Amino acid sequence: MTVPQITHEQVEAALQGSDSDLELLLREIHPADCASLIREFDLDDQIRILSSAHPEKAGDILSEIQGFSSAEEFILTEKLPFDFLVEMIGTMPSDNAVDTLNICKPSMIADILSRLSPEKSEALEEMLRYGEETAGGLMTDDCLQLQDSTTVSNAISQIKKMKKEEEVLHYHYIYITDDEERLVGYLPIVDLLVHPDSTPIKDVMIRDPLSVNADIDQEQVANMFAKYDLDVLPVINRGKRLIGRITVDDVIDVIKEEADEDFYKLVGTDDTEKETPSSIKIASIRLPWLLSTLIGSFLASTVIKLFSGHVKEFVALFFFMPVITAMSGNIGVQCSTVIVRGLATGFVKLGYARSILLKELKIGLIIALTCSVVAGLCSYFFIEHNVKLGFTVGVSMLACVVFASSSGTAVPLILKRLGFDPAISSGPIITTFNDITGLLIYFTIATVILL
Amino acid sequence: MTVPQITHEQVEAALQGSDSDLELLLREIHPADCASLIREFDLDDQIRILSSAHPEKAGDILSEIQGFSSAEEFILTEKLPFDFLVEMIGTMPSDNAVDTLNICKPSMIADILSRLSPEKSEALEEMLRYGEETAGGLMTDDCLQLQDSTTVSNAISQIKKMKKEEEVLHYHYIYITDDEERLVGYLPIVDLLVHPDSTPIKDVMIRDPLSVNADIDQEQVANMFAKYDLDVLPVINRGKRLIGRITVDDVIDVIKEEADEDFYKLVGTDDTEKETPSSIKIASIRLPWLLSTLIGSFLASTVIKLFSGHVKEFVALFFFMPVITAMSGNIGVQCSTVIVRGLATGFVKLGYARSILLKELKIGLIIALTCSVVAGLCSYFFIEHNVKLGFTVGVSMLACVVFASSSGTAVPLILKRLGFDPAISSGPIITTFNDITGLLIYFTIATVILL
Repeated sequence: MTVPQITHEQVEAALQGSDSDLELLLREIHPADCASLIREFDLDDQIRILSSAHPEKAGDILSEIQGFSSAEEFILTEKLPFDFLVEMIGTMPSDNAVDTLNICKPSMIADILSRLSPEKSEALEEMLRYGEETAGGLMTDDCLQLQDSTTVSNAISQIKKMKKEEEVLHYHYIYITDDEERLVGYLPIVDLLVHPDSTPIKDVMIRDPLSVNADIDQEQVANMFAKYDLDVLPVINRGKRLIGRITVDDVIDVIKEEADEDFYKLVGTDDTEKETPSSIKIASIRLPWLLSTLIGSFLASTVIKLFSGHVKEFVALFFFMPVITAMSGNIGVQCSTVIVRGLATGFVKLGYARSILLKELKIGLIIALTCSVVAGLCSYFFIEHNVKLGFTVGVSMLACVVFASSSGTAVPLILKRLGFDPAISSGPIITTFNDITGLLIYFTIATVILL
Repeated sequence: MTVPQITHEQVEAALQGSDSDLELLLREIHPADCASLIREFDLDDQIRILSSAHPEKAGDILSEIQGFSSAEEFILTEKLPFDFLVEMIGTMPSDNAVDTLNICKPSMIADILSRLSPEKSEALEEMLRYGEETAGGLMTDDCLQLQDSTTVSNAISQIKKMKKEEEVLHYHYIYITDDEERLVGYLPIVDLLVHPDSTPIKDVMIRDPLSVNADIDQEQVANMFAKYDLDVLPVINRGKRLIGRITVDDVIDVIKEEADEDFYKLVGTDDTEKETPSSIKIASIRLPWLLSTLIGSFLASTVIKLFSGHVKEFVALFFFMPVITAMSGNIGVQCSTVIVRGLATGFVKLGYARSILLKELKIGLIIALTCSVVAGLCSYFFIEHNVKLGFTVGVSMLACVVFASSSGTAVPLILKRLGFDPAISSGPIITTFNDITGLLIYFTIATVILL
């Protein structure tokens, strides 16, 4: 791989020199590399770096900045010289321009749009109407679009004309529309080379291409790309008019985002916490889940109190509570995570719910038997030399593990069937639920065997 | 979107008819849709469906089958008529052919290769040498490759010639090599349309293209695609000779796989469990983690036993143990997951370890203060009307949450710095560790305040 790289120190040195030194240095490196470098500088230097780059390059860099919170990006765009910001947005591909506009203040958006060409401004305004997490929010509106009445040689000469005006480097397909701009087919550009010049496009195009409606959710779009191995997908409006295309690089970001969302939900938080640098806001996102867990865990306290009258004479019973709750909790979360992730990737299908439950139950039984023997022996040899107590711990472990693996498997499947997001059956909730039931099982069995 | 769909019932009906009925029905639908349908049938029907399809279509279907374990795929390939299997592998793109060969028995691989054309067999044999999780394992060896001494018109006529022999639909770029087949540049095919016929390719190609070495790990490849917004990436060997290209559809699978891996590790298991249908094998993958947790949780028992001498007179102290362990565990796992996932996606960078720790500590403090007040009040009003006890629970909660969030943040960062995979700081381990330290903190504080 040969991407020219520059170091933090080189940028540091260039910051001491003139704007044109800086511009020359930045010209050398890939916008994505510049975007990761820029994070290492403070806001003033970030502004200086961006605004000394060519506006087009600055736009590319800004679009590549990941790991910045929206709040940080907002400050960045607000501090850029306004004329520079307008020029930058004017040269950006429309999908990136819309993303950048989306972080600006509404009043600023209007100002920026009024300074752009009427066509550009109208196009961006239309795109701003789509939700950020929809196909419309992902698409760019520049397509290579030709009428179905054209011929191969006509198509080639139109592309030649375009090349003079704009970048055609990133077009791999021609989209073919009828006289009302409805998408009717497509053609890989390489095909233009192999058909005789006079061939009507209609005769060689691939008909009824895969497309998505602009208001489809981005997760569905990502699933289509993954399922049908796409590299680009045309977007249509409700009248079937071609309005843009989604490229695979944006879909990769969506796939990562969606996985992120599930990771965060799994541990009782939300990936919106990445959008704010404020510790108070992040704490307020995490607290509702944690407080429910806290309140829930007092139910476990109530269970212990309930049994404490009988159990007081047998203090050793208290020793094994963390063993029971730890195993119930971990196994429950393990099963629910395997199911939640499986449902998200398609590895687990709701249609097979019964066989999945049976399989997890079988796995749970093997684990339960093993853990039960180990727990019984450990409690006897390491903690208290009492056969009945060891037996109690072993039997309780068996029951708790079987219960935890069944509920961990069943809950996300039930949530999915009821139309909820299975990822909300998150770690904290499952853990607390299994703490309570685990202790109930343990003390009930202990009462029967020991007291 | 207009992908023709067929139903389970239609396939069921066609299975009653002749092979050609089945073939006609399958011809209509996309291989990816057929792959999801086929999972719903039993092995004999799967064999019947695959072997009545055209071998090329069957190959496409087999490559799209996800959610099958390798063991299931192995049985499937072994049961297909051998001649059909050979023909199918012969028509597959080389990356898929290698994937299919990789699940066959070694003796079968040799048999299959000996039946293919010498060129095909030699190419596949070379590709089989690369690790499945490397760039070489991801690539396909069919590239549009031209010498740098050629001209635009020559390039066009070579593509025309190729089209007659094989599918060129999926080529978007020409790779340009010197006379020793070393990669020196590339050109988007659309560019051939816009330059005059006599232009030497050398003058218009993009020099020093991004490429990867065949033995690079697939995770690094995926990161390059994501970072540089690629749709295809050429692969070179150590002598810089062009040997293949990786397309973005395979990279999407890698990104999903890598996220899967982290999800599974997070809950103390391994995504290799997806490759086996055997419950015993899956249990044996999960057990080592669970048994370590189990043994670890007996350390927590030891802590309780240690303090039980003093605490016996104060049975109510036992009631709050699950409150302490649940909160320590959940908050520890929450912090470690946010860090592990952040490190994987690049949102968290090791270079900022100190500021990340500080930020999580700030968040942890806010959460700790809130939970501490709630826990103190709950224990007083709902469980035991004892001010000192409520105070003990509150103060312990504060200390435990701060400790759990610091350790949950620090451990993955330290693991990463030491060169380990931070994802091994998985839920079960963190939970058990925090159970033990949480109880130690709680009983120590209780001893000071109450006894």
